[in-house]
Amino acid sequence: MAKKQQTAIAPVRAEDYPEWYQQVIKASDLAEKSPVRGCMVIKPWGYALWENIMRGMDDMFKATGVRNAYFPLFIPLSFLEKEAEHVEGFAKECAVVTHHRLEKSPDGGLVPAGRLNEPLVVRPTSETNIGDSFAKWVSSYRDLPILINQWANVVRWEMRTRIFLRTSEFLWQEGHTAHATREEAIERTRMMLEVYADFAETFLAIPVIRGRKTESERFPGAIDTLCIEAMMQDRKALQAGTSHFLGQNFAIASGIRFQNDQEQDEHAWTTSWGSSTRLIGGLIMTHSDDNGLVLPPRIASAHVALMPISRSEEDRARVMEYTNNLAADLRRQHYHGRPVQVEIDQRDIGGARGWDWIKKGIPVRVEIGPKDIEKDAVFVGRRDREARERASIPTGKFISGFTRLLDEIQN
Amino acid sequence: MAKKQQTAIAPVRAEDYPEWYQQVIKASDLAEKSPVRGCMVIKPWGYALWENIMRGMDDMFKATGVRNAYFPLFIPLSFLEKEAEHVEGFAKECAVVTHHRLEKSPDGGLVPAGRLNEPLVVRPTSETNIGDSFAKWVSSYRDLPILINQWANVVRWEMRTRIFLRTSEFLWQEGHTAHATREEAIERTRMMLEVYADFAETFLAIPVIRGRKTESERFPGAIDTLCIEAMMQDRKALQAGTSHFLGQNFAIASGIRFQNDQEQDEHAWTTSWGSSTRLIGGLIMTHSDDNGLVLPPRIASAHVALMPISRSEEDRARVMEYTNNLAADLRRQHYHGRPVQVEIDQRDIGGARGWDWIKKGIPVRVEIGPKDIEKDAVFVGRRDREARERASIPTGKFISGFTRLLDEIQN
Repeated sequence: MAKKQQTAIAPVRAEDYPEWYQQVIKASDLAEKSPVRGCMVIKPWGYALWENIMRGMDDMFKATGVRNAYFPLFIPLSFLEKEAEHVEGFAKECAVVTHHRLEKSPDGGLVPAGRLNEPLVVRPTSETNIGDSFAKWVSSYRDLPILINQWANVVRWEMRTRIFLRTSEFLWQEGHTAHATREEAIERTRMMLEVYADFAETFLAIPVIRGRKTESERFPGAIDTLCIEAMMQDRKALQAGTSHFLGQNFAIASGIRFQNDQEQDEHAWTTSWGSSTRLIGGLIMTHSDDNGLVLPPRIASAHVALMPISRSEEDRARVMEYTNNLAADLRRQHYHGRPVQVEIDQRDIGGARGWDWIKKGIPVRVEIGPKDIEKDAVFVGRRDREARERASIPTGKFISGFTRLLDEIQN
Repeated sequence: MAKKQQTAIAPVRAEDYPEWYQQVIKASDLAEKSPVRGCMVIKPWGYALWENIMRGMDDMFKATGVRNAYFPLFIPLSFLEKEAEHVEGFAKECAVVTHHRLEKSPDGGLVPAGRLNEPLVVRPTSETNIGDSFAKWVSSYRDLPILINQWANVVRWEMRTRIFLRTSEFLWQEGHTAHATREEAIERTRMMLEVYADFAETFLAIPVIRGRKTESERFPGAIDTLCIEAMMQDRKALQAGTSHFLGQNFAIASGIRFQNDQEQDEHAWTTSWGSSTRLIGGLIMTHSDDNGLVLPPRIASAHVALMPISRSEEDRARVMEYTNNLAADLRRQHYHGRPVQVEIDQRDIGGARGWDWIKKGIPVRVEIGPKDIEKDAVFVGRRDREARERASIPTGKFISGFTRLLDEIQN
C-alpha cells in the first residue's frame, strides 16, 4: 500500500516561493530574525555552513598568495569624506556611533553620553580603512603586490530584510589588493571571479553565470565590476560574489603611492572582491525542495545522522554500542580533507525524527535497530532520493563506501 | 674573531620593558595602531597567529560538545536595562549607535542623520543578546544543556590602549552555556578553565596558574569567576582566559526558563567564558627576547624561512630550483594536523634578511647557496638558539627530521 508522501514544508514552492524560503530556514533551524533591528541570529546548523564556506574559500584564496588580516570595525567620517563618489553611492545608510558612554537617566533608564568629536561609521565595507593602511605599507614597487583578505562583519542599514539575503549586519569576506600595473590589477580582478565561480560550482554545487555590471549597477568608485550570478528556482538571478577593478580611484583618495622601477612616483592600481552569508541564501534556493533543505556533502553542516531504534532497555545498550562503533568508524574517515561529521540522534519521537533530518537537509540518514544488528546491516536513506526510498546495506560495505556515496550525492 | 652579537630590538627588556614590547611588535610586523581611536590593525603575520589560535582552540571546544553560532553586533538599550548589575560594572564605556544615515552638511562634510528611536550599543560582550535567544530556544529540560560559542569582535571604550593587551575593539571568543542544574553549570565552568589552561600550555607553551577572582574583581553579575594567569618576564601576571559561573542571575534577567523532569518551572543555570587577542600579547611577553619575537612552532605564523643565496645569474636558477623542491618536500608534511608552512624569501638585502626572520620569530631559518647544493646540504639556524649558532645539515636528513625538530623547539 502506497503511503501518502508527507510534506515537510508549508507552503510548497509553487504556492508561495518567498514564504517557502522562510519556512525552509525555520524548519531546518539555520537561523532566525533577531529582535535587534534588521539583524539575524545564525544558529549552529546554519553557522556550520558558514564555517565550511570560510574554510573552503580561504584555502582557495591562500593558494593564490592572499593572506588574511584584520582592520577596524569603525571608519572615521573624515575617511569617507575623502571618497565622495563612494559615499554617494554607498555609505549613506549606515550605523553611526556618536557617543562612547552610557549614563543613568533620572527615570532609571540608560542614555548615551560622552559625545565623540568625530562620529564613527560602522564599516559597510573597508576600502577606506584598508586604503589608509596600504598607503603606509607601500613605498616602492618592491612592496607590491599586496594581497589581503579579511573575514568580518559589516553593517548596511536595510529597511526590508530577508534572512541571509539582505540583513543589516552580515558576515562576509572582503579581499583588497594593490598592484604596480593596471594589467596586473585587471588580471587579479578576473582571477578572483574565477575563484568564486569555482567555489560555487565545486563546493556549493551551484552553476553560475559570469557577468559584468552596467555602469549604473557598478560598485561606487569602481572602473569595472564583475560578478557571478546563480539562477534560483523562481527563475530569478542571485548575485553571489563580485570582483571590482578600482583603477587608481581609491589609491588617489587614500594616497597609495609608490616609486616604480624607473624611480618615478605613481599611484597603485587596486581591486576588491567580496562574498557573504548571502551564499547560504543561494544554497537554500538552489537545492532545497518541498521537503525542506538539501545540503551538498562538501558544505553540509554534518554528513550523516545515525538514529538508533530500540523498544526494550535490553536492546538499548546493544543498539547504542553498535551505533557508537559505527560513528567512530565513520569519523575516522575524511571527506575532501574534512573529518566525516556524524550526528547521533537518540530522541524518542518516532517518525518525526527522520523527517527532522530530512528538513535539515543532511545528506545521509541511517536507522539502526535490533533486526539490523542481527544482519550486521544498516537501513539507509539519502536526501537526494525519495524519503521512503530506503535500503538495507551491510554495515561493512556502508562504511567502506561512505565517501564514495557522498561524492555520488554531491555530483 | 668573535663577531659582536647584533641586537635587533632597542630598547632591550632590562632597559624599558613596555617600550621593548611595542618594538618587538613593530619589528615583527604583527600589528600596528590604527588612526581609528583605540583600534589596531592586525597585519598578516599577526593575524596568522590568531588563525592558529582559533583553529586549535575551536577543535578543543568542539570536542566538549560546544557548537559555534553568531549573534548580532548590536545590543538594544532595553536589553541592558534588564541587567542592572551587569551594566553598572561593565557596559558604561561602550560605543553607542544613535543614527542610521549620513547626510551632506552645508560645508560639504558629512553629518549623522536618521536618529534611532532606541540607541544601540556595540556589544562589549553578548550575555544579554544570547540570553534573549536562549530564552526562546529552551522550554524543557530536554532542550538543555545548550553549549554555544561565538568568534567575534567586541568593543569596550578604552582610554589608554596597548596593542593586543588593551584595545577598544578586539577579537575574541565567548562561550555561553545553559544547564538544568547548578552542579552541571559549575562543572562546565571548571571544564572550560581546564581547556584554556591546556591550550595555553600545549599550543602557546605558556605555563599558567589557575586562580579565582575576588568579589570585587569578578565579572559583573557572576557568582564565581575562574581565570588562568601567566607570569610575564617583568614578573607581572597576565590574565589570559576567564570562565564564569553565572548562577541563575542572567537566566532571571533574560527569562531562560524550563520545565524540569518533575514538570516544575525553573530558571536555567548559565556560564560564560572568554579569551581574546590578548593571548597574542601574552605569547609575545612570555617567549620573546632582546632579538625580537619567538614563536612556538604549534602556533607560529609559518614554520620555516628558506633563503636562497646566489651571486651569479647562472647560480640563481639552480639555487631557486633546489629551494622550490625543498619547499615542496616540506609542505607535503603535516605538523600536528597542520601542513608545514614555508616562506621563501628571495630579497637581495644581505644579512638583514636573516635578522628580519629572527625578529619575526620564525622557528627555523635555512640558507641555501651554491656550495650547500654541491654538498646536498642546507645551512640551518634555530630561533631557540644563538643567532650565529648555525649548522650544515644534509638536506635529506633535514627534511625527514623536520617535524621532530619543531617538536624539540616547541618543548
